[in-house]
Amino acid sequence: MADWTIATLSRAITARQVSPVEVTRECLARVGKLDPTIRSFITVDADGALSAARELEAELGAGLSRGPLHGIPVAYKDLFCVGGLPTSCGTKTRDYFAADRECTAVGRLRDAGAVTLGKLNMTELALGPFGDNPHHGDVQNPWKRGHAAGGSSSGSAAAVAAGFVVGALGSDTGGSIRLPAACCGVVGLKPTYGRVSRAGAMPLSWSMDHLGPLTRTVMDAALLLGAIAGYDALDATSSRRGVPYYERVLDTPVEGLRVGLAENYYFEGLDAEMAAGVRAAAKVLEDLGAEVAPVRVPDPAPLVEVCNVVTRAESAAIHAKLVRERPHELGPAVRARLEVGLHVSAHDYLQALRLRARYTREFVARAFAEADALVVPVIPEPAPVLDAVKAGTPEEVVGRMGRFSRLTRPFNGLGLPAVSVPCGFSRDGRPLAFQVVGRPFDEATTLRLGHAYERAAGWVARRPALD
Amino acid sequence: MADWTIATLSRAITARQVSPVEVTRECLARVGKLDPTIRSFITVDADGALSAARELEAELGAGLSRGPLHGIPVAYKDLFCVGGLPTSCGTKTRDYFAADRECTAVGRLRDAGAVTLGKLNMTELALGPFGDNPHHGDVQNPWKRGHAAGGSSSGSAAAVAAGFVVGALGSDTGGSIRLPAACCGVVGLKPTYGRVSRAGAMPLSWSMDHLGPLTRTVMDAALLLGAIAGYDALDATSSRRGVPYYERVLDTPVEGLRVGLAENYYFEGLDAEMAAGVRAAAKVLEDLGAEVAPVRVPDPAPLVEVCNVVTRAESAAIHAKLVRERPHELGPAVRARLEVGLHVSAHDYLQALRLRARYTREFVARAFAEADALVVPVIPEPAPVLDAVKAGTPEEVVGRMGRFSRLTRPFNGLGLPAVSVPCGFSRDGRPLAFQVVGRPFDEATTLRLGHAYERAAGWVARRPALD
Repeated sequence: MADWTIATLSRAITARQVSPVEVTRECLARVGKLDPTIRSFITVDADGALSAARELEAELGAGLSRGPLHGIPVAYKDLFCVGGLPTSCGTKTRDYFAADRECTAVGRLRDAGAVTLGKLNMTELALGPFGDNPHHGDVQNPWKRGHAAGGSSSGSAAAVAAGFVVGALGSDTGGSIRLPAACCGVVGLKPTYGRVSRAGAMPLSWSMDHLGPLTRTVMDAALLLGAIAGYDALDATSSRRGVPYYERVLDTPVEGLRVGLAENYYFEGLDAEMAAGVRAAAKVLEDLGAEVAPVRVPDPAPLVEVCNVVTRAESAAIHAKLVRERPHELGPAVRARLEVGLHVSAHDYLQALRLRARYTREFVARAFAEADALVVPVIPEPAPVLDAVKAGTPEEVVGRMGRFSRLTRPFNGLGLPAVSVPCGFSRDGRPLAFQVVGRPFDEATTLRLGHAYERAAGWVARRPALD
Repeated sequence: MADWTIATLSRAITARQVSPVEVTRECLARVGKLDPTIRSFITVDADGALSAARELEAELGAGLSRGPLHGIPVAYKDLFCVGGLPTSCGTKTRDYFAADRECTAVGRLRDAGAVTLGKLNMTELALGPFGDNPHHGDVQNPWKRGHAAGGSSSGSAAAVAAGFVVGALGSDTGGSIRLPAACCGVVGLKPTYGRVSRAGAMPLSWSMDHLGPLTRTVMDAALLLGAIAGYDALDATSSRRGVPYYERVLDTPVEGLRVGLAENYYFEGLDAEMAAGVRAAAKVLEDLGAEVAPVRVPDPAPLVEVCNVVTRAESAAIHAKLVRERPHELGPAVRARLEVGLHVSAHDYLQALRLRARYTREFVARAFAEADALVVPVIPEPAPVLDAVKAGTPEEVVGRMGRFSRLTRPFNGLGLPAVSVPCGFSRDGRPLAFQVVGRPFDEATTLRLGHAYERAAGWVARRPALD
């Protein structure tokens, strides 16, 4: 079980070598055995999962298949509304966020045959320090105990890395899919803004929020993206653009693709092993025939400031009631972040939105003038020690989180598709990762490069030793 | 000249009974003679207009017609960017607002054959009191000297009423097309939010701003709307919905259309003659076979408050530089409005946006459950005395403007199409008007009702005696 990907498991299920019920039982058993240590789940829905698996098994028995996700076990960051289950959003409140109906992305995966195992741990309100959760337990990095699983979709990354599920969905407002993916050695994709409907997921900062998959392989990310992408009348920002069959382009050779290695800003203050890992990944792409060349991108530092203002204002507006009425329920860093947000002026907020729009036009024009995709690191260093992440004053913690997300956050402001792909390990066994960033709505090229690397590097074979 | 509509003038031009150059000359002469009193123009572009008219005349000579707007004289509120002409936005600065290129709506009318006579007076930044302009002169009401032409598109309404142009474009953030139309006895249409691109027009409050036509007749408004509506890549909020030939549906009988007379809120504190005029208009529609019935709409008062917060914040963000660096250049009420806006919190602003979205869903669902369109008044009283509008402290002036716009502003927040249609006169000769409001993107029904009324009432024959 622990070695399955969506692609391999799907073939086994279709060939009736393994049944959805067997898969579900095995996953639940693994969760039961190992998750008390990892703490990736907040809610396990064994009954719901088995009931869905039985139905899907019956369909197969009748010769019906819903496609590549038929019978695939998945789980959701606990800010997605899933029919019948509470949504804590990582807070103390059991059911903090209730939408009118199930999250659109969840419904689409359900329709495609995915089996929901439960709801995954996350940092409080998707705002807390890496791996930290004062209410549901800290998420352990499956590769290295005592180290953070990243954040905020810490449980999503850890559950996939630990082999509890074959895919998970997370959300990414400043790096919250890609950072835990990088920390846990799994693939994490933040699609283009507007590519995936956010309806039915807790908003944190609606102009920066993205939903996306975490998986073991790039191919699996492509399969999940294809199932959840596309227009949704319930999310006014969702795009009407057609959704390609991403998985079908992944094997197109990357020869001749122009890959820009964005060195300014992105390689500053980087851990040496991380820097070497990213450069080695770029070298693999070059060996595969991609034209890798350094590019100079517009300095993202001002954009990061702008993103901070926007997220502060929007998150405070969303969670004002909680932070005003029950601040004692919140962790100190989360509380500090929200309280600051209550005092942003509309003028500063609106100026930030306008600057962001202008910066985005400039960035896209310049960065992609001579490159089809960018390669940059995801995170300045491999998974940090959990206790170290939480140490210090709220301001220190928030500052540290800002440093961790400085390489991912720009692409939230820019709305560009970005995928975090594992690329080896530090000497002490923590995963390394690189980020491939594409033009708006060109997830296909980012996935194609990630997939080509992954194939060439043979990375997918590795697993943390948990059993 | 003064009696032409787009429809009648177009027939005369096509039949070669009158040439675009003759029309343009006559309009320019009329402006030269009468506008020193009315003050509807800020910039008259005689050379540009004659040159365009000559070209259009040559095309007709060659057997080419661009359609119903070929050779039609128009002018633009001085916040539309028109190639080669400055854009004061009613401020002291000759060229306050410069877009990258000409306003999309202007370019579309130009392509359709309209001849631009110049740029029209407006209240300062579209924020000042009715008819007032400390830099370019107060706009006189063509029907009654010493009375305001409304605002903020005061020059647009006055120029059409005075017969200087056959159509004009204005902008409407809280009623700024419909209010001057009502004051000046012309038709003013605020289309659905997203129906007409705003690219190239000064923003005041981008989530509330709408561009639209002011004309003598509803048919003319339909012709101009058809030319300027439709998707524009330069305005992210512009809709991709198809644009119907509005003018072709106007003669469809209104028999059986359900017209809701929204009495709660809308008839409170209304001038008696105005109230009687609106009810009489509704009676005309009933006599034509429409099913007119009272409807209860969700109370717009909280929405108006929400709209005020939104507009305060957005307008201050846009004009922050001016109000901070050169406040002495601004009229006291405009300065007060912008200064207040600088202190709105992002939290209040964002809450306002969210409340507005929720209110909009409720309003549309309830108001249009049993009505195809609403009929309400436009303005609580006929065109007020100019000096009275400006009297008092800035707070008093702003409060008065709020009272004048209380019947129009809700439809900016709601984004619904609304047309102001003249419906007679007060005993002392000031125009009366009613407003027809439709479902989102259903301009056609509002125009159809307005046109049916206009035909039945024979209103279009009247003109102010200026010569």
